[in-house]
Amino acid sequence: MNDRLDAQFAFLNEADRLKSVLRATTLCDGSRRENSGEHSWHLALYAMVLADQAPKGVSIDRVIKMLILHDLVEIDTGDVPIHSSGGAAHASADTIAAERRAADRIFGLLPPDLRDSFRAIWDEFEAAETQDAIFAKSLDRVQPVMQNLACDGGTWVEYGVTYDQLEARVGTKVARGAPKLWDWVQTKVRPWFG
Amino acid sequence: MNDRLDAQFAFLNEADRLKSVLRATTLCDGSRRENSGEHSWHLALYAMVLADQAPKGVSIDRVIKMLILHDLVEIDTGDVPIHSSGGAAHASADTIAAERRAADRIFGLLPPDLRDSFRAIWDEFEAAETQDAIFAKSLDRVQPVMQNLACDGGTWVEYGVTYDQLEARVGTKVARGAPKLWDWVQTKVRPWFG
Repeated sequence: MNDRLDAQFAFLNEADRLKSVLRATTLCDGSRRENSGEHSWHLALYAMVLADQAPKGVSIDRVIKMLILHDLVEIDTGDVPIHSSGGAAHASADTIAAERRAADRIFGLLPPDLRDSFRAIWDEFEAAETQDAIFAKSLDRVQPVMQNLACDGGTWVEYGVTYDQLEARVGTKVARGAPKLWDWVQTKVRPWFG
Repeated sequence: MNDRLDAQFAFLNEADRLKSVLRATTLCDGSRRENSGEHSWHLALYAMVLADQAPKGVSIDRVIKMLILHDLVEIDTGDVPIHSSGGAAHASADTIAAERRAADRIFGLLPPDLRDSFRAIWDEFEAAETQDAIFAKSLDRVQPVMQNLACDGGTWVEYGVTYDQLEARVGTKVARGAPKLWDWVQTKVRPWFG
């Protein structure tokens, strides 16, 4: 039992480092960049609040777990902003390979049963093929939109993003898992882009 | 539908402010104080990792939701460190009353169905009478112990905490929901206090 708890806490203490990984997006008040730990908490809360936007059959409990785990790999890779490098860096083959190595190392700190179950949840999120993963991805994409709207453009200004680019990089992904949510967000976003 | 989403996002944007509420505890590397948003994420991860420490009958899914919501009231009240004022401020009548007013305001931003269900979860956590709430409280108490251990004492040094005080203020609460976990933590903590 002691070896098991040693491994569990080696992972939990390592996870603490996600609080030092900074994203491009800021807090709603623009005071500083958001870190990936607090972002993950906010997304779990998004899942609880927006559960009624999930298609029938989605398990919100599983979505919450996915969102709690989804960014842990950034401890090794850092966050790759979706609008950086003209939108090309985010899901590049290099990024994907680095994130898989990070998942091997970080989930590998856990006892084998937890390592395998957490890795399966993370793989499912990354693959974005199941209903739960598609809805989780929608929330991950919509939250920065709301943060940017709250602080007059945020990373849209920083990266010179157009409305068409936002639709292509973000809107299609939000709409895939939560179409009515994106309809509503569009009514808020369009006036900002003018 | 639009009014409902307006209310859901009024709450989600207000919740963003929890990322600016600082706790006494620092990150494991001691680089800065932890905020209550990232702390809530870390606790949700604790629940996933330490699920095998929960007594039979505990719903980890409910525990995770409790931990995601448990500190939101601190947007209005701030965090009251457990070892501050000689351990007397943390659960004082004044603190409890202020937190209830904060819960009225913050959960009151939500549509009525979510307001009532979230408030019920928060009330259950605060009352610490159900198995789920008692286990959630154990995790909330044990995480700062692990953060302090990782950075050579942290708030124990700051507040001049003795081993007996730690047992009284923290150990009894951890042991109530997760007795074997506290047994293990004791073996790590005792050498530090010497």
